[in-house]
Amino acid sequence: MPVKDIEQLSINTIRCLAMDAVQKANSGHPGMPMGCAPIAYRLYSKYIKHNPLNPSWINRDRFVLSAGHGSLLLYSVLHLCGYRISLDEIKNFRQLDSITPGHPEYGLTPGIETTTGPLGQGFANAVGMAIAQEYLGSIFNKNDFKVLDHFIYGICSDGDLMEGISHESASLAGHLKLGKLIFFYDDNGITIDGSTKLAFSEDVNKRFEAYGWQVLNINDVNDLKQIDKAVEDAQKEKARPTLIITKTHIGFGSPNKQDSEAVHGSPLGENEVKLTKKNIGWNENKYFYIPSEVSDHFNGMKTSFSDYEANWQTLINEYRKKYHSDAERFLKSFKNDFENDWIDALPVFKNYEEKVATRSASGKVLNSISSRLTSLIGGSADLSESNSTIINGQNVFSSENYSGRNIHFGIREHSMAGIVNGMALYGGVIPYCGTFLIFSDYMRPSIRLASLMKLRTVYVFTHDSIGLGEDGPTHQPVEQLTSLRAIPGLILIRPADANETVAAWKSALMHKGSPVALALTRQKLPVLDRTKFASAENLSKGAYILIDSEDEPDVILMASGSEVSLAVESFYSLKEEGIQVRVVSFPSWRLFDSQSNDYKNSVLPKSIRARISIEAGIKQGWEKYIGEYGEAISIEKFGASAPYEILFKEYGFTVEAVVKKAKTLLAKLQSIKSI
Amino acid sequence: MPVKDIEQLSINTIRCLAMDAVQKANSGHPGMPMGCAPIAYRLYSKYIKHNPLNPSWINRDRFVLSAGHGSLLLYSVLHLCGYRISLDEIKNFRQLDSITPGHPEYGLTPGIETTTGPLGQGFANAVGMAIAQEYLGSIFNKNDFKVLDHFIYGICSDGDLMEGISHESASLAGHLKLGKLIFFYDDNGITIDGSTKLAFSEDVNKRFEAYGWQVLNINDVNDLKQIDKAVEDAQKEKARPTLIITKTHIGFGSPNKQDSEAVHGSPLGENEVKLTKKNIGWNENKYFYIPSEVSDHFNGMKTSFSDYEANWQTLINEYRKKYHSDAERFLKSFKNDFENDWIDALPVFKNYEEKVATRSASGKVLNSISSRLTSLIGGSADLSESNSTIINGQNVFSSENYSGRNIHFGIREHSMAGIVNGMALYGGVIPYCGTFLIFSDYMRPSIRLASLMKLRTVYVFTHDSIGLGEDGPTHQPVEQLTSLRAIPGLILIRPADANETVAAWKSALMHKGSPVALALTRQKLPVLDRTKFASAENLSKGAYILIDSEDEPDVILMASGSEVSLAVESFYSLKEEGIQVRVVSFPSWRLFDSQSNDYKNSVLPKSIRARISIEAGIKQGWEKYIGEYGEAISIEKFGASAPYEILFKEYGFTVEAVVKKAKTLLAKLQSIKSI
Repeated sequence: MPVKDIEQLSINTIRCLAMDAVQKANSGHPGMPMGCAPIAYRLYSKYIKHNPLNPSWINRDRFVLSAGHGSLLLYSVLHLCGYRISLDEIKNFRQLDSITPGHPEYGLTPGIETTTGPLGQGFANAVGMAIAQEYLGSIFNKNDFKVLDHFIYGICSDGDLMEGISHESASLAGHLKLGKLIFFYDDNGITIDGSTKLAFSEDVNKRFEAYGWQVLNINDVNDLKQIDKAVEDAQKEKARPTLIITKTHIGFGSPNKQDSEAVHGSPLGENEVKLTKKNIGWNENKYFYIPSEVSDHFNGMKTSFSDYEANWQTLINEYRKKYHSDAERFLKSFKNDFENDWIDALPVFKNYEEKVATRSASGKVLNSISSRLTSLIGGSADLSESNSTIINGQNVFSSENYSGRNIHFGIREHSMAGIVNGMALYGGVIPYCGTFLIFSDYMRPSIRLASLMKLRTVYVFTHDSIGLGEDGPTHQPVEQLTSLRAIPGLILIRPADANETVAAWKSALMHKGSPVALALTRQKLPVLDRTKFASAENLSKGAYILIDSEDEPDVILMASGSEVSLAVESFYSLKEEGIQVRVVSFPSWRLFDSQSNDYKNSVLPKSIRARISIEAGIKQGWEKYIGEYGEAISIEKFGASAPYEILFKEYGFTVEAVVKKAKTLLAKLQSIKSI
Repeated sequence: MPVKDIEQLSINTIRCLAMDAVQKANSGHPGMPMGCAPIAYRLYSKYIKHNPLNPSWINRDRFVLSAGHGSLLLYSVLHLCGYRISLDEIKNFRQLDSITPGHPEYGLTPGIETTTGPLGQGFANAVGMAIAQEYLGSIFNKNDFKVLDHFIYGICSDGDLMEGISHESASLAGHLKLGKLIFFYDDNGITIDGSTKLAFSEDVNKRFEAYGWQVLNINDVNDLKQIDKAVEDAQKEKARPTLIITKTHIGFGSPNKQDSEAVHGSPLGENEVKLTKKNIGWNENKYFYIPSEVSDHFNGMKTSFSDYEANWQTLINEYRKKYHSDAERFLKSFKNDFENDWIDALPVFKNYEEKVATRSASGKVLNSISSRLTSLIGGSADLSESNSTIINGQNVFSSENYSGRNIHFGIREHSMAGIVNGMALYGGVIPYCGTFLIFSDYMRPSIRLASLMKLRTVYVFTHDSIGLGEDGPTHQPVEQLTSLRAIPGLILIRPADANETVAAWKSALMHKGSPVALALTRQKLPVLDRTKFASAENLSKGAYILIDSEDEPDVILMASGSEVSLAVESFYSLKEEGIQVRVVSFPSWRLFDSQSNDYKNSVLPKSIRARISIEAGIKQGWEKYIGEYGEAISIEKFGASAPYEILFKEYGFTVEAVVKKAKTLLAKLQSIKSI
C-alpha cells in the first residue's frame, strides 16, 4: 500500500475508533479526536520516541493531552502503538472499572502521562515536566552523555488557552526558554457553546510571541508535510518553546456535523456515524475496525520503539561506567528512591526560651537537608522570603542556569501548582512550592489533581491564620484549613512549634501516595519544651497527648498550630484551679484518622465528653472530634486588619477565654449528668 | 504658587502620607503609592468625575486599585479630595476598627469601589463594571440622554498581570470592545522577590495588543503631560479598552531604597523616611503633613466635584420627565430595589410523574422570570446549555449588542466570578453565572471576595455530584459542597427537586448581604409529590421535615439534592418494616443555622439520636447535624467514570444501603441503651 494511503488509513482508524467508542458509550467527545487524528498519528508514529512496552522508560518523549476530553485520541493511538490497552477497553470507554475513563487518568492507563480534563492543567503540567527535565539534565547530563534528551509534546485547545493557568504557564515557559516544549493548538474554531467567536477573538499568535514563544502555523492539519515541517522546526528551536497553531476541523468527515458544536460533547448518532464512515471511505458496517494494513503498519514500528529504549540503555550502561555514582542516583531517583541520609541532618530546636515562627523553622529544615536531598527543588510565587522557601547558597533556576534549585514562579499560584504536578509526574525530583495559605484557593484545582493522581508534592503555606495581622481579611485564611482537609487524600499538617515543623517535613518527605500541605505561621511561637512535653515525633500520628493531667482528665483541649501553645498555657491555668486537663496537639486530621482505633481511643477516650477544639479557623469538621457536647473556639467570620496580638484577643483566643469555656462546659455537663 | 509647584507638592503629599502611615503602623507597602502618586493625583484632580460627598453617585467614574497593597495611595488621595476619611484614620492605618485596613475594603471606606489585595481580582472587577455599564447604558441611555456616561479607571501591577485572571479578563474585555476601561500598568520592574526579571519577561505591550487593547506608553510617570496625553487618548478610543504602560519608580524619592524590593512590603525605616523627605524637598520633621496650599488646592476642586453630580442630576430630572418609567426603574435598580412582580411568574411543577433535573428546573425558573426582572443578567463559562443558564429569546451580550443578556464568558471561570463581582459592585443589576460545580474550585478566590464584600451574586453550579456520570473523577465534585459551605457568609443551596429549585431561586433573589450558590443536578430527579410532602417553600428555612412518621420517629434521614428522593424511597421501605422514619430535606446548612433554636430542635430533636445524613459528597461537617451517634452515607474518595446509575450503586447510594444502615444504627443504639 502506498505510504500516503496507509497514513490516511491509520488516521481514519483513529477517527473511527473515537466515533465508535463514543457512540457505544453514548457519551463523550468525538469531534476533537476526529479533528486531531493526523497530529496524534504523525507524532506517535514518526516523532515520539517511546516504548509502548515500557511506558515509564525514563528518556521517553512525553505527550500531554491538555484537552483531556479528547481522550479517545490517546486511547486509540496508544492502542495502535501497542500499549497495553486492549480493543475491549476501548469498547468499554467510560464504563466502570475500564482503563478508558472519560478523561485520561494518570496511573490507570499505560501511556497516560497526566490526568487532564479540567482545562489548562495539562498545559501547566507540561511546563513542569520541561522544568524537571532541564533541572535533572543540568545535573545528570554530561558533555558526552545526554541521558535526558527528549521533547515534551502536547495538544491544547481553545479552552486551555482561555484558562488563566495557560497564560501563567506560557509566560513562565517563555521566560525560562523551555525549548523542549512543543504544543499543538487545536484551532478548530468551536467550543461547547458554539463558535469560539462568541468569546474569544484574541490573536493567539501574537500573544504567544509576546510570551517569548516560537509560533508556527499549519493551515491544514490533514497535510502531514506541514506537520512534519512544524515539528522539525520546533525541534530545531532550542531557546524558545513552540506553539504550533493548527487549523483543524472538529468532527472531521462528518457530513452534517463537522465544524459545529454538535460534535463537541455528544455522540454523532448512529446514522451520522455511518454517513461519516461512508464519507471518509470506511466500511459503514464495521465497528471498532482496525484494518490489517494498519495493524501491520504499527507492528512495523515495534522494532524502532524498542530500539529507542535499547539504545538509551546502551548509553546508560556506558554512563554507569564513567559516572557511576551519578548513574546510580539518577536511576534511583526515577524509582522514587531518594536516599534517606537527609533524615540525620534534620535540625532539633532545643532552646526553649526562644520563639520561632513555624515558617522559619520550615526554612531551617529545608536548608538543613537540602544538600543531602538534591532532588528537592521548588520555590514560591513571589514570596520566597516570607515563605522561607529559599535554599541558601543555591542559584535561581533560570534559562542561564537550569541547575538552580530556587524557582521563581512569579505571581502565578495556579500555574505554580500545575507545574509542580508536572515535575512530580516527570519523576526524579520532589517538588515543593510556597505561598500564603490564603492563596491555596488560587491553586485548588491543581492541588485536587495532585491528590487524584497521588503525586508527591509538598505545599508550604505560610501566614496561616489571622496571626498574619495587618494585611487583613483578604489575606487571612479562615476556612482554608478546613477546605484543604476536604480534598480526598491530601494530607494537611499544621505543626504547633518548631520541632513539630521538623517532624512535619519529615512526614511530608517520607510520605508517598498523596500530596502534603504544611500550614505555617508568620508569627513567632514558643518552642515547646520537649523535656516536659511529649516528643514532636508523635506528629506522624496526626494527634497526640502533648501533656496530660495526673488523674483522669476532666477536659480535653485539642488544638493545632499556633493555638497549641495557648492550650498549654490554659492547661496550667486550669490546673491551678484544680481542673484536670489533657492537651492534644492535633496537627493533622487525616494522619490521625488513619491510626488504629485503639490509638485514637487512647487519645480521645469516649468517656471524656468535655472536649474543646482551639483553632483560628472555622469549626466545620471539628465536630467529629469534639463530639456532641464539645465546644469549639473558632472563627466563623472573616478576619480584620490589625496587629495580630490584638486580633487574637478580639477573636477570643486568650487563656481567659479558654479557661472560661472549659469551666462553662464542665458545669453544663455536670448539670446534664445530674438530671 | 505656580501650577507646576502645587502639582508637585500635592504628589509629594501623597508620597509622604503613605510613607508616614506605613512607618507608624510599622507594616505595609509604601513603595507603590510613592511611585504611582502622580497617576492618582492627576486622575482624581483632573479626570475622575466624582463627588466625594456622595461616593455612590450613580454616574461617577469608577477607580479600581487592583494592586490593593498600595491602599495608601487611595486613602491619601481620597482624603485630599474630601471623602470622609479623616487624617486620624490615615494615622490609624492597619489598626483594629479603623477604616484604613491593609488592603482597601468595599463597604468599609468611602470611595473604595471594590475590595482588592488578592492580585488580579480588581482587574476582573473593573471588566465587570464596564460590562454592567454597557448593559445598563444600552437599556437606559437614550440618544438625547446619556445617564450612564463615564469611565472606569484602574491601576494594576506586574502581579496583577502575571495572575491568570488578568489574562482571562483582558482577553474578554478586548473581545467585548469595552472602550470605557482605562488601566494604568504600574511598570516599576520590582516584585516582592526582587526584579520582575526573575520571573516575568513577557512583552506586555504585545500581549495586550493581542487581546485587542489599545496600548499606550508613558516613559516617566512624573511627567504629567504624558499622563494627560495618555488619558485623553484613552478616552477618545471608543472600541478598545486601553492599557497605559507607565514606567514608575517604586519608592520614588527614597535615596537608598527607590527601585528596590526593600521598599515593596516594608516600612522605609525612620531614618530613610527622613532622608526621602529631605530628598524631595519636604520638611523632614513633619509627619502626616498636608501643606495648606495643598488643602487649598483640593478645596478649590470642591465646586467642580459637586457640579459633576449636580449637572447629572439636572439631566436626570429632564430624563425623568421624558422617560418616566425608565427613570424610575433606573434609579430604583441602583438602590437595589428590583420590583418583585417576578415572584408571581415563578413556575410550579405539578406533574409528579415527570422526572426533572434540577438544572432544567433552574433554566425554567430563569426563563419564567427573566422578562419581569430585566436586571438579571448573566451567563456561563462555555456550558450555557449544560448549565441551563440561557435566557431564551434574548441576545448574546456582545460588542455589537450590549443589550444582550446572555453573556458568554468563555472558558474563564475565575474571571467570570471576578467579573460578576464587578457587575454587582457597579449596581443596577443582579448578575449570575454558571459552570459545573467542580469548577467552583477555579472561581474560589473571587467567590470568597464576593462573600467578604457581601455582594448579591448568584452561582448556578450544575453537575453537582458523581451523578454527572461518565465524565469521571476530574469532573465529579466530591468535596465542593463542603468547601463552599466553609466560606463565611456564602449561602449554598442544594435543592431536592424541581419545586425546591424554584424556592432556591426565590431565596437567592430575595436574599441580600451575601452571594448564593445553587448546586444542581445533571441527572433527572423525581418531582416530589407536594400533595403528600411538605411544601417546597420550606426550603427557605434551610432544612425541613419533608415527610414524617405517624409516631415519634425512630430514625431521621436527612439528605440534600438528589439524595432526598433516595431518602423518601427508603422511608417507605423502612416503614414497611415497621420503622418510624422522618425525612428531612436539608438544602442549606447556613439557612438552617440561622433559624431559631425552637425551629431547629423541632426538626432535629436532641432526643432522636439515630440520624443518618445522605449526601453524595464528603461527610465532613455533617457531624454537626447527625450528632455523636449518627451515621453518614457519604463519599470519602474520588469518583469514577461510569453511567451514573451504576456509580450511585457502586458508591452505596441505594435504598438497600440506607435501610441497612438505619437498621444497624438502631440496633447499635439499642445495645448502648441496654448496657
